Amino acid sequence: MFKKILIANRGEIALRVIRTCKEMGIKTVAVYSTADAESLHVKFADEAVCIGPPPSSESYLKMSNIIAAAEITNADAIHPGYGFLSENAKFSKICEEHNIKFIGASPEMIEKMGDKASAKSTMKKAGVPCVPGSEGILESFEQTEKLAAEMGFPVMLKATAGGGGKGMRAVWKPENLRNAWDSARQEAKASFGNDAMYLEKLIEEPRHIEIQIVGDSSGKACHLSERDCSIQRRHQKLTEETPSPFMTDELREEMGLSAVKAAEFIKYEGAGTIEFLVDKHRNFYFMEMNTRIQVEHPITEQVIDFDLIREQIMVAAGIPISGKNYTPKLHSIECRINAEDPFNDFRPSPGKITTLHAPGGHGVRLDTHVYSGYTIPPNYDSMIAKLITTAQTREEAINKMKRALDEFVIEGIKTTIPFHRQLMDHPDYLAGNYTTKFMESFKMEAPVED
Amino acid sequence: MFKKILIANRGEIALRVIRTCKEMGIKTVAVYSTADAESLHVKFADEAVCIGPPPSSESYLKMSNIIAAAEITNADAIHPGYGFLSENAKFSKICEEHNIKFIGASPEMIEKMGDKASAKSTMKKAGVPCVPGSEGILESFEQTEKLAAEMGFPVMLKATAGGGGKGMRAVWKPENLRNAWDSARQEAKASFGNDAMYLEKLIEEPRHIEIQIVGDSSGKACHLSERDCSIQRRHQKLTEETPSPFMTDELREEMGLSAVKAAEFIKYEGAGTIEFLVDKHRNFYFMEMNTRIQVEHPITEQVIDFDLIREQIMVAAGIPISGKNYTPKLHSIECRINAEDPFNDFRPSPGKITTLHAPGGHGVRLDTHVYSGYTIPPNYDSMIAKLITTAQTREEAINKMKRALDEFVIEGIKTTIPFHRQLMDHPDYLAGNYTTKFMESFKMEAPVED
Repeated sequence: MFKKILIANRGEIALRVIRTCKEMGIKTVAVYSTADAESLHVKFADEAVCIGPPPSSESYLKMSNIIAAAEITNADAIHPGYGFLSENAKFSKICEEHNIKFIGASPEMIEKMGDKASAKSTMKKAGVPCVPGSEGILESFEQTEKLAAEMGFPVMLKATAGGGGKGMRAVWKPENLRNAWDSARQEAKASFGNDAMYLEKLIEEPRHIEIQIVGDSSGKACHLSERDCSIQRRHQKLTEETPSPFMTDELREEMGLSAVKAAEFIKYEGAGTIEFLVDKHRNFYFMEMNTRIQVEHPITEQVIDFDLIREQIMVAAGIPISGKNYTPKLHSIECRINAEDPFNDFRPSPGKITTLHAPGGHGVRLDTHVYSGYTIPPNYDSMIAKLITTAQTREEAINKMKRALDEFVIEGIKTTIPFHRQLMDHPDYLAGNYTTKFMESFKMEAPVED
Repeated sequence: MFKKILIANRGEIALRVIRTCKEMGIKTVAVYSTADAESLHVKFADEAVCIGPPPSSESYLKMSNIIAAAEITNADAIHPGYGFLSENAKFSKICEEHNIKFIGASPEMIEKMGDKASAKSTMKKAGVPCVPGSEGILESFEQTEKLAAEMGFPVMLKATAGGGGKGMRAVWKPENLRNAWDSARQEAKASFGNDAMYLEKLIEEPRHIEIQIVGDSSGKACHLSERDCSIQRRHQKLTEETPSPFMTDELREEMGLSAVKAAEFIKYEGAGTIEFLVDKHRNFYFMEMNTRIQVEHPITEQVIDFDLIREQIMVAAGIPISGKNYTPKLHSIECRINAEDPFNDFRPSPGKITTLHAPGGHGVRLDTHVYSGYTIPPNYDSMIAKLITTAQTREEAINKMKRALDEFVIEGIKTTIPFHRQLMDHPDYLAGNYTTKFMESFKMEAPVED
């Protein structure tokens, strides 16, 4: 087992990794930028090394500084967290070259899954469903008609030069394909001087549902069930839950097996996530693979009594996994608490936290690197805490989240606590009836004056 | 279901009950003494009524004030928490008379189980093992000899007038009984002028292991496994865990069935605890029954994914229980954080908390009514928080507790955090090798200067 792990990250995820290392008896090295000197991840590590000023390019992304910190402190492994260098093939390779174990994917794996086209073609070979498409420019209407019939309606015609919805047509029935083909090409020609078209399956009422997998060095993999991450704003997840309210036992089995097949096909080692789009008919399509721990991993931990960071470290140390697939026994929800003003278009709100009181009690987990008196620097991602509630049923987990949000006091800055509180009362959320389009129509209600 | 519950208690247990009520959509009324106006249980309830000044006899024990508060606020039930009026038959009866549901045992049940002699004779009738004894004064040496042979050695001879160890003899072998009988009687005669003796089975290396039970109005009961509460100081529990490191599957089955038999025999309704002494041979003996929620109930909740307060409320509302017995799937430990100075014979340390930072993350639960800036009044029990960690194994739960204790910052007062931190490193604790005598030989190590 590793003796000392350097955590090449900041904030809550750095603290998250430090906590598990402490519990495993592994020494920890924090790295930090000058803007992060007061963060809890620095205080709770055994050692801490300043690696430069903000922005991240001068510190958290500066590979030479991080490798130097690992060498000075004699760390034998690096955990990259999420973001920053966690999916950087070059960094993974440099660690390898310096004989420091990178707790993440190999350079080859990161390259293979990091490029969307290469990831999609690999997944196709593994037999994982991908969004069907024409794989290039359509040669004729006849070819289009044939392809559309093969993939099934609805389909989406798209101009290769397209943008802003121009030259794009959703087609729901075969008899409308001809008109759409003609009008989309005319529009594309007029708009871009180029009427080349391609075809894709239209994903109706898409949900973002991802499968957590773990693979080991023997090539064996297992899945730890799904997370529904459909509630997003500008492709940023806001809240996640497991099980997905849209999930069925059959679909979980199918998606889970598909994810395991994918992981075993590429001989994936470590924790990873296969993200799928699921349409309203419960067809699922590979979107991308994340070769790292996810922000939302705690909800999986809560429902299957698992420590995913521990699992990452164990696998990296060459210890085989049990290989058992898991089904959630409980329901868990995570709300990402951001230093943003939800009443003002989620504008960032860095600054000093004058008061912080954490919610607690049965079924409540809080992951945060901030505290009363801490000043949130303006340089980074605005997420300051993850509030997770877990209960026997979805309804109970939502009710627990409401009361935990009500207990949570953060003063001095604006946070997204009021957003989550309103979300937890939204009829569509309560009904589990939401897609990735949910936030497009969500409106905050004005705050109630006391 | 109840519309509004008054919580006739203070501190963390009042807050604990309020939290579950909120999650169930039940309105809450807090009551408080003038010393407790700033407690979180007052802030988080829907309504709060001041019921008098300290001491408790003028407020939390003042039945008329509590009933008046319930009537003014139109509460249809009262949850008594633990301590105070929770096992007061008269209060249970007064609630009944005022048509307010008492979320606890009936007056008859409290009377039956509150008196030790009556509880023991009831349990004997139910077939639950009790500490064997002579049931009164021994008439002759021959009778003593016969009784001792029946109950098996070792036995304890005790002078009925005894005290301070005088007139008391542990007898390990039959051949030593005669000498012990003569010398104990002589000593008793000399010390108290009375040589009347009685006999009890000697419990070797006793452990305090209790079984959580729940019964419903149909007379059905189930058990939710055990808690080991052997680590005590002056009969005050300091830390508890489940499963007990001393437990075997067979013993759990036996003790569990015995507890269920007891609960069904007396037709027990609600949550209760049957406390047993277990000797080194894994014989177990009924000690007493608590007809209320226990301080240490969260560890049970953690390992079986249960909300015991919810269960109490459901049963009180007449909803039947599932009747399933539970076996822990995880390991959970609770440390009671008291405002006491462990380096100064656990002397109480009330006063103002200038800084409080709660530990968090995976597997950590904190139940507390205090916060940064809160002043602990000197009038009550010194417990200010319960820190609970849960993991797959005992070793992991201990390691998690160590890191959570290390993260926990409470400034301005002394707390028992350093005691628990040292306990978690004690070789006998780590080995699970402890009895109710553990604290008699435990010594705090001097604090390390930074």
